[in-house]
Amino acid sequence: MSGALEVLAEHAAFGGVQGFYRHASESTGTAMRFAVFRPPQARERAVPVVWFLAGLTCTEENFTVKAGAQRIAAELGLLLVAPDTSPRGEGVPGDPAEAYDFGLGAGFYLDATVPPFDRHYRMYSYVARELPALVAANFPADPRRQSILGHSMGGHGALVLALREPGRYAAVSAFAPIVAPSEVPWGQKAFRGYLGEDRAAWARYDACALIRAGARVPALLVDQGLADRFLAEQLRPERLEAECAAAGLALTLRRHPGYDHSYYFIATFIEDHLRWHHARLHEEGGT
Amino acid sequence: MSGALEVLAEHAAFGGVQGFYRHASESTGTAMRFAVFRPPQARERAVPVVWFLAGLTCTEENFTVKAGAQRIAAELGLLLVAPDTSPRGEGVPGDPAEAYDFGLGAGFYLDATVPPFDRHYRMYSYVARELPALVAANFPADPRRQSILGHSMGGHGALVLALREPGRYAAVSAFAPIVAPSEVPWGQKAFRGYLGEDRAAWARYDACALIRAGARVPALLVDQGLADRFLAEQLRPERLEAECAAAGLALTLRRHPGYDHSYYFIATFIEDHLRWHHARLHEEGGT
Repeated sequence: MSGALEVLAEHAAFGGVQGFYRHASESTGTAMRFAVFRPPQARERAVPVVWFLAGLTCTEENFTVKAGAQRIAAELGLLLVAPDTSPRGEGVPGDPAEAYDFGLGAGFYLDATVPPFDRHYRMYSYVARELPALVAANFPADPRRQSILGHSMGGHGALVLALREPGRYAAVSAFAPIVAPSEVPWGQKAFRGYLGEDRAAWARYDACALIRAGARVPALLVDQGLADRFLAEQLRPERLEAECAAAGLALTLRRHPGYDHSYYFIATFIEDHLRWHHARLHEEGGT
Repeated sequence: MSGALEVLAEHAAFGGVQGFYRHASESTGTAMRFAVFRPPQARERAVPVVWFLAGLTCTEENFTVKAGAQRIAAELGLLLVAPDTSPRGEGVPGDPAEAYDFGLGAGFYLDATVPPFDRHYRMYSYVARELPALVAANFPADPRRQSILGHSMGGHGALVLALREPGRYAAVSAFAPIVAPSEVPWGQKAFRGYLGEDRAAWARYDACALIRAGARVPALLVDQGLADRFLAEQLRPERLEAECAAAGLALTLRRHPGYDHSYYFIATFIEDHLRWHHARLHEEGGT
């Protein structure tokens, strides 16, 4: 059962409220935390929801603390939701001391099928279904107007969710996303561990494979730093570029000399992303 | 000896560079870390320096990661410097497990006189003299144009530094500062531990006492959240208001309903502070 929502902390910020919450998740069988920023406009009406999915090692806090997104969300009237990146707690396997890129903090936004991970690592169901229902029930959110973005592993998550849930998100964007996890070490390790050797299962969580198989999203914005140490081996934005070109899918891919994989990169360009989402949320859902 | 500057990390941010550095400090006898944001304008000319002093439990990272100040500093052409809040390292007394408000992370921007703290806890000398010289020697800083601000214990530090170093800072501002440390528990504990029972020594690190004794600063801006749990017992902005009124010192004190003591409060109002500093830096020093 989805338990009641527990308020962990709420802080006034930019005329709105930045909150941290916990609930018993049916999907993961654990207590899950998430962060929500309610913009000032949400006191008077339901507002669009923008999802941010974080990368390896992160929690609901990283984006919330580091990106400076609340200022822009307060101006534009966007509800920001930042989930955690994996289940956590007693009995959840995947010690982060053993690997930063698998297990705790590295859920890869998929539903695992391999024991012992299949019991708790069900982040796709959690982010695609359970948490949106919980947010809609507890916050002044307009579920007809949602968009999604993410960073690195969370960029992968945002792309996959948007590709697999057509019509759900008015816009999708990413910072330094993993775009072809089946083809790179981070993704191969995660897919092997969570999904086993079934390559068809991998393809359902691989943005490039999904596009090749015919999945589509509305316009797509990706920012990539050229001083990102994961660029060549793990991120490979040229793979997304090629698949979008072949599919006729509109991709805006911006390459930024000097920028690395950090939240300083995200903070620099988050305003562009939120304004871009806002424009598309208002095209799609009207106000 | 002030050792060479060691670069710990540098990240592109908002067209400039956010760096973290370490050096051997003569003042504290320890390795000290600090953060500097170089705005894009600093590639072409020396720019004004804005100092941010952090509060209890903080390091050079909190403001740098959480406040979102780089965006505004990049627009205005300000070099931001964030020192650590105390000496740290082997042999430095003041275990934070014993007290969050004394010792490590709680240097109170003073030069201690009581053993064993007198050996390393010399943050006044460090922030007033050693670090400015190091910054001037290693960064594109214009030492004739400096201003200072801080949060909580760091607001105390900013006020005391500006009051004790007349002509140094073109502007001083604070978020939720400790304004009368001699009169409140945090300050009394720190002063007793670092300075002993000599009340005249306390008064030299007490903004209200310094103003009463005739010290002056240019215009002063203070923001205070009214949901700040430290407001009534530790912060007491009405004490500063009274001393400034008695002294004829121009104070802008803004009280913000609903805001707490966190960096969400700082992030919300940092833009106002930096624009206010920028205006005064350009009045004082020309461009």
